[in-house]
Amino acid sequence: MRMYDLIMKKRNGDALTEEEIHYMIDGYTAGRIPDYQMSAMMMAVYFQGMDAEETAALTLAMARSGEMMDLSAISGVKVDKHSTGGVGDKTSIALAPMVAACGVKIAKMSGRGLGHTGGTIDKLESFAGFRTAISSEQFVKQVNEIGISIMGQTHDIAPADKKLYALRDVTATVDNMSLIASSIMSKKLASGADAIVLDVKTGSGAFMKRETDAFALAKEMVTLGNLAGRKTIAVVSDMDQPLGRAVGNALEVKEAIDTLRGEGPEDFTKLCMTLGSYMLLAAGEAATQTEAEEKLAQVIEDGSALRKLAEFVEAQGGDSRAVYDTSLLPTASITEEIVSPQEGYVCKIDCDEIGVCSLLLGGGRETKESEIDLSVGLILHKKAGDFVKAGESLATIYANDREKAEAAKKRFMGAYHFDEVQPEKQPLIKGIIQ
Amino acid sequence: MRMYDLIMKKRNGDALTEEEIHYMIDGYTAGRIPDYQMSAMMMAVYFQGMDAEETAALTLAMARSGEMMDLSAISGVKVDKHSTGGVGDKTSIALAPMVAACGVKIAKMSGRGLGHTGGTIDKLESFAGFRTAISSEQFVKQVNEIGISIMGQTHDIAPADKKLYALRDVTATVDNMSLIASSIMSKKLASGADAIVLDVKTGSGAFMKRETDAFALAKEMVTLGNLAGRKTIAVVSDMDQPLGRAVGNALEVKEAIDTLRGEGPEDFTKLCMTLGSYMLLAAGEAATQTEAEEKLAQVIEDGSALRKLAEFVEAQGGDSRAVYDTSLLPTASITEEIVSPQEGYVCKIDCDEIGVCSLLLGGGRETKESEIDLSVGLILHKKAGDFVKAGESLATIYANDREKAEAAKKRFMGAYHFDEVQPEKQPLIKGIIQ
Repeated sequence: MRMYDLIMKKRNGDALTEEEIHYMIDGYTAGRIPDYQMSAMMMAVYFQGMDAEETAALTLAMARSGEMMDLSAISGVKVDKHSTGGVGDKTSIALAPMVAACGVKIAKMSGRGLGHTGGTIDKLESFAGFRTAISSEQFVKQVNEIGISIMGQTHDIAPADKKLYALRDVTATVDNMSLIASSIMSKKLASGADAIVLDVKTGSGAFMKRETDAFALAKEMVTLGNLAGRKTIAVVSDMDQPLGRAVGNALEVKEAIDTLRGEGPEDFTKLCMTLGSYMLLAAGEAATQTEAEEKLAQVIEDGSALRKLAEFVEAQGGDSRAVYDTSLLPTASITEEIVSPQEGYVCKIDCDEIGVCSLLLGGGRETKESEIDLSVGLILHKKAGDFVKAGESLATIYANDREKAEAAKKRFMGAYHFDEVQPEKQPLIKGIIQ
Repeated sequence: MRMYDLIMKKRNGDALTEEEIHYMIDGYTAGRIPDYQMSAMMMAVYFQGMDAEETAALTLAMARSGEMMDLSAISGVKVDKHSTGGVGDKTSIALAPMVAACGVKIAKMSGRGLGHTGGTIDKLESFAGFRTAISSEQFVKQVNEIGISIMGQTHDIAPADKKLYALRDVTATVDNMSLIASSIMSKKLASGADAIVLDVKTGSGAFMKRETDAFALAKEMVTLGNLAGRKTIAVVSDMDQPLGRAVGNALEVKEAIDTLRGEGPEDFTKLCMTLGSYMLLAAGEAATQTEAEEKLAQVIEDGSALRKLAEFVEAQGGDSRAVYDTSLLPTASITEEIVSPQEGYVCKIDCDEIGVCSLLLGGGRETKESEIDLSVGLILHKKAGDFVKAGESLATIYANDREKAEAAKKRFMGAYHFDEVQPEKQPLIKGIIQ
């Protein structure tokens, strides 16, 4: 078998066999197939696409390119959750303890990632001392003991995906549905959970700007997960404006804590309830959607979800006192209000731009080497559909540097759009694929 | 400017500007742009194509990536000739002396190349002592003195094309008309001739199997040449069966000598007359096609073309006695007849397969490192349209190894097809583009 012939085959619009895809991925991971052949192949895939069988074969080949986590030592159904990402997405931090408090085992790997804010791992480090670099043995032990653990993604999970994504990222071959779906699902399959709930975002702050693309990606991933024998459900949710009100690492942790107290923003609470109920259903911890939502409401009501967060933070070396006293979380030295220049309804928020404000404040990474300032960010007081008077505060900026605060403020002003009439409210949940 | 953005632009179907193409080619030649980005770009070009302006910019950028030969020290119009290649194509060896004998300056660079037989350079080495590794100064001096020189292609002619072609060759991005045309023409433009006559082959032994593709390539190259200010003419000619009767290095040289004596095969003689007449017209050495053909017939008739070959061979250190006594050329130790298994008309010859026979005998290179046996090859006694009796000879094999002779013979048998009725004769010259 020669990579040249496979490139030619794909270029000419023919489907690659499972054997050919494995040859290609194994060879690429091992360094036998050079980058220049793989990037030509990826561009050919961009134009010719991959059918369902090819995508499934690619996903499995990448999942098996490194360690396949063995979670069999954990009793019960292990459920994983994945979000395609967006601005103010602190979902895992509230959702994981909620679901764990209901008795579902949460054995999750998370990343740091580049972008507007840090990843879940960075956010959790807002708890002083919190560690995610734990061994697989510790991870399994903790899940068995307290029902929840979140560890940093090790290097050996789907190394083929890691290498291939880095190549696609510099050769303009990222945006192909099969490649995006297989990249996400290869990591999820290698992470070992029995069931997977996907949160596919759509809108101006999401990777999938168009709803049709988000649904297509959701369908592709659900098919891949189910083909691999994992019960997979996707929730397509709105990311046309930031999720909740907090954007920034410690600020988002505080908002997650508020939510576990029953005092979170409506949209964020609703998303946690929806994703959580599908996780309970997938794990067999509830028979109906209603029953699942009642259970989730109960663990918030009785404080057990909040206690689960504290227990989880404590188990991984973090200062759990901050769960009950959020003033112990990292705090910015400067706060500044951004006031509205006019009266009217907020009709649109350029969601990505709000993310950029967080980045400008120092809350995200521009390069892999960047240091994150966990304390900075924004709290939005007005969201789409809200009425605002001239001079009223739109948001509060949390900063540690006057210049950065000014830059973020300037950027922020361009992101809010106003209208005289109230815009129609967009639903948070766009649909469910299962 | 970033290569990533250029790949994205081409991928999305937009045209690259002249500035962008220069940035890309300069960066790639200098090693600033990596292979993996260029191969993704080439695949995007395969799918999205390049328009006339882009192709012209690419051609010029590649031509200028190394040395641009300065032939201004040679008086008169310098005419170059290029063939897209085929089986039994010994044209330059007869044509160059014919045209030079008519007073047109021939300052030509040739290659060795991989394939069924060697390139022009290899064939010329059938004259003991012949050297093509000469300096530019010697080259210019010789053309001024005797009107003809053929030198080996130096490393510095269009290095961008050399690097890019090698990459395309391993990433299945060779067959795109714009890329093929710009690759050929960049080298021709850098070689410095004032006028260029192209011999574009079509048929089972050609790179362009289909006539429509050959015409498209011819048009593209003529446009590129004329845009660059070089008078360019393309002859589209048949390569559905080997050209002439000889296939193999020294055997082809002998056939070229026979042709200069007026005793060459009809098709090969006709091709030389056609290409030669356009070279004379381009150089202003004839006013009409008829006048040009008369002049060419004259230099054969009076022996001056043959003498020009001897003078040329002598000037480059070769043994010119072989021009008058071809028994001095390399000779194979074994000759074997291939007899026809049946009676009938030869209706089709798989041209590439005859080339493979030459390769099997040792007459061509499989890899860059292969040594060529100049003496081996085949002489075809029957060509398409000829009638043959069972037991009559189809061809003579010239070999130095019994096993290789057997392998070639076996292969040869599959390449000849017979019919009861005489097939229609195909014209040798398919058309002229100017």
